[in-house]
Amino acid sequence: MIQLSDVQQLDQGDPLAQYRAQFNIPAGTIYLDGNSLGVLPKTTPQRLHQVIHQQWGEDLISSWNTHQWIDMPLTVGAKIAKVIGANAEQVVCCDSISVNLFKALAAAIRIQQRADSGRTQIISTADNFPTDLYMVQGLQELLGQHQCELVLVSEAELEHSINSATAAVLVTEVNFRSGRRLNLQQLTQHAHDQGALVIADLAHSAGAVPLAITAWEIDFAVGCTYKYLNGGPGAPAFIYVAAPHLKAVQQPLQGWMGHARPFAFEANYEAAEGIQAYLSGTPSILALAAVDSALDIFADVDMKQVHAKAIALADLFDDLLEQFQLHTHFARLTPHAPEVRGSQLSYSHPDAYAICQALIARGVIADFRAPSYLRLGFTPLYLSFEDIWNAVEQLAEVLQQEEHLDPKWLAQRGKVT
Amino acid sequence: MIQLSDVQQLDQGDPLAQYRAQFNIPAGTIYLDGNSLGVLPKTTPQRLHQVIHQQWGEDLISSWNTHQWIDMPLTVGAKIAKVIGANAEQVVCCDSISVNLFKALAAAIRIQQRADSGRTQIISTADNFPTDLYMVQGLQELLGQHQCELVLVSEAELEHSINSATAAVLVTEVNFRSGRRLNLQQLTQHAHDQGALVIADLAHSAGAVPLAITAWEIDFAVGCTYKYLNGGPGAPAFIYVAAPHLKAVQQPLQGWMGHARPFAFEANYEAAEGIQAYLSGTPSILALAAVDSALDIFADVDMKQVHAKAIALADLFDDLLEQFQLHTHFARLTPHAPEVRGSQLSYSHPDAYAICQALIARGVIADFRAPSYLRLGFTPLYLSFEDIWNAVEQLAEVLQQEEHLDPKWLAQRGKVT
Repeated sequence: MIQLSDVQQLDQGDPLAQYRAQFNIPAGTIYLDGNSLGVLPKTTPQRLHQVIHQQWGEDLISSWNTHQWIDMPLTVGAKIAKVIGANAEQVVCCDSISVNLFKALAAAIRIQQRADSGRTQIISTADNFPTDLYMVQGLQELLGQHQCELVLVSEAELEHSINSATAAVLVTEVNFRSGRRLNLQQLTQHAHDQGALVIADLAHSAGAVPLAITAWEIDFAVGCTYKYLNGGPGAPAFIYVAAPHLKAVQQPLQGWMGHARPFAFEANYEAAEGIQAYLSGTPSILALAAVDSALDIFADVDMKQVHAKAIALADLFDDLLEQFQLHTHFARLTPHAPEVRGSQLSYSHPDAYAICQALIARGVIADFRAPSYLRLGFTPLYLSFEDIWNAVEQLAEVLQQEEHLDPKWLAQRGKVT
Repeated sequence: MIQLSDVQQLDQGDPLAQYRAQFNIPAGTIYLDGNSLGVLPKTTPQRLHQVIHQQWGEDLISSWNTHQWIDMPLTVGAKIAKVIGANAEQVVCCDSISVNLFKALAAAIRIQQRADSGRTQIISTADNFPTDLYMVQGLQELLGQHQCELVLVSEAELEHSINSATAAVLVTEVNFRSGRRLNLQQLTQHAHDQGALVIADLAHSAGAVPLAITAWEIDFAVGCTYKYLNGGPGAPAFIYVAAPHLKAVQQPLQGWMGHARPFAFEANYEAAEGIQAYLSGTPSILALAAVDSALDIFADVDMKQVHAKAIALADLFDDLLEQFQLHTHFARLTPHAPEVRGSQLSYSHPDAYAICQALIARGVIADFRAPSYLRLGFTPLYLSFEDIWNAVEQLAEVLQQEEHLDPKWLAQRGKVT
């Protein structure tokens, strides 16, 4: 039997407890949706104030040089690299995951074509985040199926499906619905043994789990800065490219910011050396400044500690669900072993949408995913163990009071991951 | 002989003079670089403060619905549509010009392929802004020259070059170097007569010159919000698509935000009806909010008045150059007739870089473009005629004092358009 005092003791022994003070947590809110939109870091408003008033407002165009705006995609990329275990000079922060996936997919196809490998298939999982699949479908329609073909399999079939026709495997390490985590290192080794490349989507990984992208020899990785990295709504994404590929091929969205000499304004494209060649157009400095500010929090964070706490928070949630005798209502979608989990729990329930809305009305911000999933994100830098106790208490109240049967919540409505 | 009092009278009679109070103009600065980065509108910091503190900080994920974040690419697009003379439901604000050009180029090629026209060439001008050419080169490498081939001609040869092989003409209406303005309406009619499509880059047009994009039957247009529209450094771009093309073909960068039902998370892409299908990934809300705020200034602006004042400001600059006997130093690159000009003047001078730096040191912010161009932007909403008098006076001092011969400015260095 877990007591509140036990939970409070966990908080007292928590080596990450100090980080909570660096974030703005709305009063009366338990925020279990940091896997959708991270909270506002306390330093970010001040940083943006400075960028808006001083850099844009007063220093204007000169800020591209004097405030190093021009370098921001790379300097922010280097900070992201540290969080995902990648070489600093191989990550750039720009565009969206979707657009960056297109660059990676087209480059992967090109690498296989240059090698004359005859490999044209992109293998992915049927329950991957949809934009990943849509971007392959877009490239397939552009190039024709003879050059690029999407093959969908289940997660269980993934490794087994890689064969001599596989150009690349496109996987999201942590599934957005189930929270299941793949073994990227093992998958990459297997794919490479089969002659296939790996494109990893780290949307639900970056800032959540320990990664070693360069050491694992991942070929391409993309990811998100507005979830666990707290870069702000719709903050720019990032892309990582393995060093040999940077030299071998160009990505096709070759805008002027990726040119070797952008300010020479030459008529012919010549790719910059290194990851800069994965830049396309002019990036939003306001958006980059928010990401840059948020990443400073991660400067001395131990990602193993972060993930260990996420697992502990999630396990406490699940244990309390059982202790409050709520577990019979829910079918758990997320696996149990820590090594195959990200930082979220998902449960299926026929009234998941209504339960989610009733929780939100009580200040517990959870997340609904169609058709019937209640999704809870555990962000260790700003959640306490007592938050989890309180959240489960609120969930118990919702179900006891039958608040989820309120007719106003019967109609389902989605929102953004 | 123009007297200062004449110039002051022009300001007194200026119907746009009231707008200057809506912008933050740094003290001691005459800003002739709004064609590179527009100044900070006074309402923007307050708007961003609200988005950062209240919407992101307090309301968090719910803001996608309660503060209509999800609609912003379209609502901001509708405001841009008004400025460029387009139907409100055919413009969306997202991504960069480079990325949006790729969508337009690929869609144009696809339209020609569906029509079985055999047309594969994209005609553009050799002195177009480089990113426009680079994006065609990227698509050409991706599809192969048999499907997409860039053909470069001079502006003078442009109309004459359109023939039965032309898939689309890609032009920037106002040239970034010379400030020369093409006749988009006439060009489009001629291109259509020849069976070719038109893709117009409005980077130096939107917010500067009166446009009627829909009435002129332009097929695709892209443009920028960080120059004349004052949306902030690297602010998101926009794309316009003619209604028949929206129905006819999909663009290839088909991310989840362009899906007919993004929150159903379906594995197969189905394009949304209308311009929403030109969205790819999740957009930056901070960046969009700044654009949205800046566009409110344009709500009741008459673009004919804006361009008339830009021409008057530029003509005053050129006349004063002659009166101060400075014109012999400079070779004017910009044509004289108002109808073939945007809102800038460009002059060639062997020491253009050094002159530009010396002007900046005196608070007159001009712009240098390699190899030898001094570029001056005339933004009628926040420049006065007296600003122009003062700017030319400063230029006269620079040349008289030979400040441009200072050795510290001998090395050339570029910066961002």
